[in-house]
Amino acid sequence: MTDAETATPAALAAKTRVLEPTYEGDFVLPQHLDLESGRILAKPTLHYAVYGRLNAARDNAVLVCHALSGSALVGSWWPEIFAPGAVLSLEHDFVICINMLGSCYGSTGPGSVDPETGLVYGPDFPLVSIRDNVRAQAQLLDSLGIRRLRLVLGGSIGGMQALEWTIHEPERIERAAIIAVAPLCAMGLALNHLQRQAIQNDPDWDGGYYLPQRQPKQGLGLARQIGMLSYKSAELFEERFGRNPNRNGEDPWAQDNQGGGLVGGRFDIGGYLDHQGQRFIDRFDANAYLAILRTMDNWDPLRGGRASEEVFGRIRAKLNFVGISSDWLFPAQSVRQFAQTIRSAGVNADYREMISAHGHDAFLAEQVELVRLLQ
Amino acid sequence: MTDAETATPAALAAKTRVLEPTYEGDFVLPQHLDLESGRILAKPTLHYAVYGRLNAARDNAVLVCHALSGSALVGSWWPEIFAPGAVLSLEHDFVICINMLGSCYGSTGPGSVDPETGLVYGPDFPLVSIRDNVRAQAQLLDSLGIRRLRLVLGGSIGGMQALEWTIHEPERIERAAIIAVAPLCAMGLALNHLQRQAIQNDPDWDGGYYLPQRQPKQGLGLARQIGMLSYKSAELFEERFGRNPNRNGEDPWAQDNQGGGLVGGRFDIGGYLDHQGQRFIDRFDANAYLAILRTMDNWDPLRGGRASEEVFGRIRAKLNFVGISSDWLFPAQSVRQFAQTIRSAGVNADYREMISAHGHDAFLAEQVELVRLLQ
Repeated sequence: MTDAETATPAALAAKTRVLEPTYEGDFVLPQHLDLESGRILAKPTLHYAVYGRLNAARDNAVLVCHALSGSALVGSWWPEIFAPGAVLSLEHDFVICINMLGSCYGSTGPGSVDPETGLVYGPDFPLVSIRDNVRAQAQLLDSLGIRRLRLVLGGSIGGMQALEWTIHEPERIERAAIIAVAPLCAMGLALNHLQRQAIQNDPDWDGGYYLPQRQPKQGLGLARQIGMLSYKSAELFEERFGRNPNRNGEDPWAQDNQGGGLVGGRFDIGGYLDHQGQRFIDRFDANAYLAILRTMDNWDPLRGGRASEEVFGRIRAKLNFVGISSDWLFPAQSVRQFAQTIRSAGVNADYREMISAHGHDAFLAEQVELVRLLQ
Repeated sequence: MTDAETATPAALAAKTRVLEPTYEGDFVLPQHLDLESGRILAKPTLHYAVYGRLNAARDNAVLVCHALSGSALVGSWWPEIFAPGAVLSLEHDFVICINMLGSCYGSTGPGSVDPETGLVYGPDFPLVSIRDNVRAQAQLLDSLGIRRLRLVLGGSIGGMQALEWTIHEPERIERAAIIAVAPLCAMGLALNHLQRQAIQNDPDWDGGYYLPQRQPKQGLGLARQIGMLSYKSAELFEERFGRNPNRNGEDPWAQDNQGGGLVGGRFDIGGYLDHQGQRFIDRFDANAYLAILRTMDNWDPLRGGRASEEVFGRIRAKLNFVGISSDWLFPAQSVRQFAQTIRSAGVNADYREMISAHGHDAFLAEQVELVRLLQ
C-alpha cells in the first residue's frame, strides 16, 4: 500500500535514493508445505531480496515483512528505514525481505502453476495463514544459514508476520517491531468483506477463473478504493480535497455527456480515488488480493480460545508495538490493548504512538517520524 | 436507513405502536419545476403522508424530512418522536412528511415517466437539489393552506432539507431541528463515490437503462453495505460481532464448496452486512439511490464562496443542531462547527450532542435518547 502521493517531503527526498538489493532471487521449498487450513502447497517458491552482506558470524540478519500489496523490494517502499542512523544499516545489517505466499510479486500465489496439476491455481489457491508464511520463511533462512535474527519488523500484515515469528520461532528472534496492527476487529473484517464483494461483482470476475489479460479490473479498482479509505484519515482527506471539484475541471453540478443526471462531474476526492484504483489494477492481481485479504482476516493468535499465557508466554524477543493516532483500520487503541495483553503474559513489550494525520498509511507516508519512534 | 436490527429495546417497543397516517396521497405541481442545475422537472408528483389534524388557525403544522432511504411514512420509521410527551403530539400537531424527489417511494424519481417524453427517466433523471425539494414542498404546503411551520426537523439528508427550509423560507419557520448533518466532508463524498461505483460495476447496470425487474442488485447491495459501515460505529460492530464466525455455522477457515481457497466461510459481520444488502435490494431502486446520493453530495449552502452572513443571516427560526458522538459520516465535530458558523451569522442556534455507540444511525436506533435531547 505504498502511496507516493502521501509521502512527506522528507520521504519523497528519500525516494530519490531508492536502494537496489544486493541480491534478488527465488527459493523453492524442498517439500510440500502443510498448511494450517489442512491443505498443502506443493513445493512453493519464495521470492526474496537481500540488502547488505551477511557477516561471518551470521548474526547480523534482519527480516522485514511487507504489507498487503508490498513486494520483497523493501529498499523501494521503505527507504527511510535505511537512512544513515535510522533503523537499518547497509553497512552493518543483512536485510532480508520475502514476498508473501499468495502475492503476485514472485512467490507462489493464485497466478502460479500448481506443480501437482499443471494448472494455474486461480481461485483454487488455498488459504495460507500467517503462520504458514512464517514456517516457509524459516526454511529460507535455514537455507541461508541464518539461525537468529537481531530484528524482525513490519507494518500492517507485515506486523502480523513479525509477531508470529516471535511466537513460532521464539529462540530465533532478539527484537521485533510490530507496527499498526492487531488481529482485525469487526470493522476491519467488514472492510475486507466489502472489498471481496467489489471484486466478485465485476462482470469479468468469472468465479476467479479469468485469464490474466482479462482481470476483473473495475472490481479490483473499487476494492482498492475501499481500502484507501481505511488507510487514510478523514482529517487528511478534508485538508487535501475538501469539497473541491475534481482538479481536471469537472463540475459536480453538471450533467454527464449522455445528458443523464445521476452521474455528474466528480469531486476532487472522487478523482483521487479513481486514480488510486487505476494505478493499482495496473500492478496487482485480483485473486492475489483476495488471497492476502483472507490471510489477514484469519490471523488471531488466540483463535479458538487459546490462553494468552500459553501462546504469548513463549515469546523471548523484546517487542516494540507502534500504534498510529489516526489509524481506523487498526485503531491505536486496539494496538495498545493488544500490546498490553501480550505484556500481561510476561513478555517484554512496549507501546509507542505515532501522532499523524496520515491514518494507517503513516508507517509508509511518514517514515522519518516512524524511524524516530523506533530508535 | 431505518434499521430494525439496531433498535434499542425501547425503540423496538415503540415499533409495536407504529402509527397509521391520517391521510396519504399525491400532490402534482401545477407547473414545471425549474431546477438549480438548469434543467426542469415536468410537473412532478410529491407523495406525502399526514398525521393528526390541521387546526382552524392552521398554525399547528410540523414538517418532518426523511433520510436517504426513508419514506413519507414517518410514523413507521420514527414512532418514538410521537410518544406521549415526546417531540410531536398527534393530539395537537398536524405532521406532514413528504417523500423526496428522486426517491422510489411515490414522489417523482428515476422510475417515473417523464410526461414530456412518455419515457421512464432512468439515468436521465436530472440532479434535483435540496433547495429544489424545498421549493416543491413549499408548493404542497401552500396547497394545504399552510403558511407557517412551528417546527421542521430531520436527520441526515432530512436535516439538510430542514435547514434549507429556514434559509429559503425564513418567514415560514419557527424552529428547526437539524440532526447529524453538515455539508458532506471529503470522507463522506468519498463514501458516496464508492457506492456509486458499486452500482455501476454491476453486470446488470447497463448504463442505468435496466428494467425494474432486472436491477443491478449485487451492486445496490454492496452500495448499501458500504453505507452501513458509515452509519454504524466500530465500537458497535465490535461489541455485536467481534471476530465471531457467521452465526449460521460458516467457518472462516474452511474452503468453499468448489474447493477454492480465496472465498471461505464468512465472519459474523460479513453475514450481517450481506443480510442488510439483501434486505435493501428488495425495497429500493438503484437509480433512485444514485439520484439521492447526488442530491446529498451537492448540498452546500455556501457553495461558490457565498458569504455566511448573507446566506445564514436570513434565517429567522430558532435552530437546534444535534451531533452524534460516534458518527463518522457526519462527525459530531463537523456538526458542532457548522452550528457555530451559523451562530456567528447572528442566528439563534444551539448545539447538543447525543452520546451513543450507534454511529450515524443513532437518530433512528436510539429514538428515546434523541427525544430527550430535543425536548
